[in-house]
Amino acid sequence: MRIILDGMGGDNAPGEIVKGAAIVSKLVNHEICIVGDEEQIKRALSEYDHEPKNISVLHASEVVTSEDKPVKAIRHKKDSSLVKGLMLVKRGEGDMLLSAGNSGAIMTGALLLIGRIGRIERPALGAPYPYVSKRTVGLLIDAGANPEVRPSCLLHFGVMGSLYAEKVFGFTKPSVGLANMGTEPGKGSSTLKEAYTLLEMAKEQKGLGFVGNIEGRDIPLGIVDIIVCDGMTGNMILKLTEGMGISVLDLMKQYFLSSATAKIGAMLLKPKLKEMKSAFNYNEYGGAPILGVKAPVVKIHGSSNYEAVVSGIMKAVPYVEENVIGEIENAVAGLDEILESRIEEE
Amino acid sequence: MRIILDGMGGDNAPGEIVKGAAIVSKLVNHEICIVGDEEQIKRALSEYDHEPKNISVLHASEVVTSEDKPVKAIRHKKDSSLVKGLMLVKRGEGDMLLSAGNSGAIMTGALLLIGRIGRIERPALGAPYPYVSKRTVGLLIDAGANPEVRPSCLLHFGVMGSLYAEKVFGFTKPSVGLANMGTEPGKGSSTLKEAYTLLEMAKEQKGLGFVGNIEGRDIPLGIVDIIVCDGMTGNMILKLTEGMGISVLDLMKQYFLSSATAKIGAMLLKPKLKEMKSAFNYNEYGGAPILGVKAPVVKIHGSSNYEAVVSGIMKAVPYVEENVIGEIENAVAGLDEILESRIEEE
Repeated sequence: MRIILDGMGGDNAPGEIVKGAAIVSKLVNHEICIVGDEEQIKRALSEYDHEPKNISVLHASEVVTSEDKPVKAIRHKKDSSLVKGLMLVKRGEGDMLLSAGNSGAIMTGALLLIGRIGRIERPALGAPYPYVSKRTVGLLIDAGANPEVRPSCLLHFGVMGSLYAEKVFGFTKPSVGLANMGTEPGKGSSTLKEAYTLLEMAKEQKGLGFVGNIEGRDIPLGIVDIIVCDGMTGNMILKLTEGMGISVLDLMKQYFLSSATAKIGAMLLKPKLKEMKSAFNYNEYGGAPILGVKAPVVKIHGSSNYEAVVSGIMKAVPYVEENVIGEIENAVAGLDEILESRIEEE
Repeated sequence: MRIILDGMGGDNAPGEIVKGAAIVSKLVNHEICIVGDEEQIKRALSEYDHEPKNISVLHASEVVTSEDKPVKAIRHKKDSSLVKGLMLVKRGEGDMLLSAGNSGAIMTGALLLIGRIGRIERPALGAPYPYVSKRTVGLLIDAGANPEVRPSCLLHFGVMGSLYAEKVFGFTKPSVGLANMGTEPGKGSSTLKEAYTLLEMAKEQKGLGFVGNIEGRDIPLGIVDIIVCDGMTGNMILKLTEGMGISVLDLMKQYFLSSATAKIGAMLLKPKLKEMKSAFNYNEYGGAPILGVKAPVVKIHGSSNYEAVVSGIMKAVPYVEENVIGEIENAVAGLDEILESRIEEE
C-alpha cells in the first residue's frame, strides 16, 4: 500500500507531519510518500528516527494555504503538494491521500480531481464526534461539506457512514440516527421527513441500523454511532460542541480559583482535570474522510500534531485494506430500488 | 395590567405556578388571573402568602396535556386553561398569556386564536440562551417553531429579537449574529446568503446591530446578544447546549470520584460546583416569547418551578408596558422597502 501524505498542509507542517510519518514508518510496512518541499521535508526527516525503506519524498514547489480560494487553488497551483498528491491517487500511484491543509481545497480537489462515485450526488465530510462522557466517538456526516441536501443525500450519508464506522472504527452494525428537532417521526423539514422514510426503508430492506430521529440533547450522550445531517447542521453540532467545551472549562477555572479552599481542592484535582481535558482529545480516531469520492481522501485537523498524523495514517490503513470505497459503491447501488419507488410515489 | 397565567400547564402545575403567582402578587400591583381548575388552584393559593386583590381565578374544566396534538387540542378543548387564557387575551380582557404547557399547542393557539402581525409570515420562538462562562444570556430566535424559513423571515427574526432584548432584557443596541457554518459573508445555504444581505441592509438603513455570521464555536462564548437562525438550527443549538452541560458534568463526576485524593479535592470544591451548576440555571431571564403574534404570549419551561414562574411574570411586565408588539409592528413596516428592493433585483 502506498499512502500519500500532504507534507505542507496545516499549521504544523512540515515538522509534525513528518514526525508522524517517521513514527508510522516503524510501525507498519506500507510506503508513505510525503509530498512537499523536498529540502524542508528531508531536513525534518533527518531529525526523527524512521524506517527509510517505508518513506519516500516527492518534491512539490507550491503550497495551498488556508487563505487560498479552493477552486482557484486546485486549478492554478498544479505544483502544490495537495494537487500533486491528489493526482498520484487519481493515477493509481497512491492508495489514499491524507492532508491537514485547507479543508475547502481538499474537498474541491477530491471532487474535481478524483471525482464522485457514480450514484453519489453529494460527497460528504465524515467527522469523528467525541462522546466525552463515554470516552468514545460517533461519526458525524455531513460535518460541513453541503449546506443544503436532498433526502436521497441523507440516505447515502447514512449508508456510507455506517460502512466506514464498521470497517474503520470496527463497530458492529453501527446504529444510525437522523439529527432532528424532536424524536418523533414526522418532525422537521420536508427534507428530513422524506429522509426519515428513506432511512426506515433501508433499515427494513437492507439491514441499515437506523434507529430514528435524534435530538440535540441526546447527541453528546453517545446514543448512536452515526449522526446523519446536512452540512450546516453538522458544522453547527461539531463547532458548538467544541465551543461548549471551551466555555465550561473556562467556567470551571473561574469558580475553582474564586476561594482559598476551592484553590486547594482544585490543586488536589489537578491530575484528574488534566485527564479530563484529554477526554476532549479524540485524535486517536483518525481524520475526517470525504465519503462519496472514488478514492480515500482524509482531512486531518489543521492544528494536528504528530499524534493526530499517526492515528490519521493508522486509520487510513483499514480504509484502504477493507475496500470501503468498493463496499460503498455496492451498497449505494442497492439503494436504487428504494429511491425509485419513492419517486414513483410522488 | 392583567396578566393571564395558565394554571394547569407544565409538570409542576398547579402548585409551583400558583406559588409563583402568589409571590409576584406581593411584589407588583398588577392583576394576575390564574386560569384552571378552580378548586385545585384555590386550595394551592391558600397555602401561600399572597395579596388577594392582585389575584383572580377563572375556572377551566379541561387541560391541554403534553400528549395532545396541538391543532386538535386548540380546536376541541375549548374549556381548557390554555384556550380560555388565549381567548381572554384575544378579547382584550388580558394583556398577555404565560404558560408552561404543551409548546406546540401554545404556538398553535397563539397563531390560530391571537393571529400573526400583518407583515410577519412566520412568528418565531425567542428563547433566552445561557452564556454560562459570562453568566449572562442571549436571545436565540427561532428556537424551534419553523423548521424551514425564507430569508425575509430571518430578517424579521433579527429585528423582533433585537427589540425584545432591548425593551425586556434592557440591552442597549443589541448585537445580532446570523448562525452559519463560517464567519465570512457568502457562507451557507442560498437562504442564509440572502438573509445576510437583508440583515446588512437593515444595519445600514435602519441601524440594526447586525455584526455578521456567527459559527458554532463562538455561540456559547456570548459574542452576540441575538442569535438568528431557522427553527431546526435553533432547536439544535439550544438542546445540544443542554446535552453538553449534562455530559460534561457527568464526565466531571466520573473523574472526581476516581481516586481518594480527587475525592477530597471534590469535597473542598463542593460549594463551587454547586454554584457552577446554578450558572446553567438561567430562569431569571424569563420565558420564551412567541414573537410575531398580535399579543404577548410567553412559553415558560415545562419543568418550571416557582422561581421560573416569578421571573416569567416579572419579565412579561416590560414586554407589555414597553409596547414591544407595537414597536415590532412599526419596525417591520419599515423593512418593506428593503424587501421590495431585493425582489426587484431578482
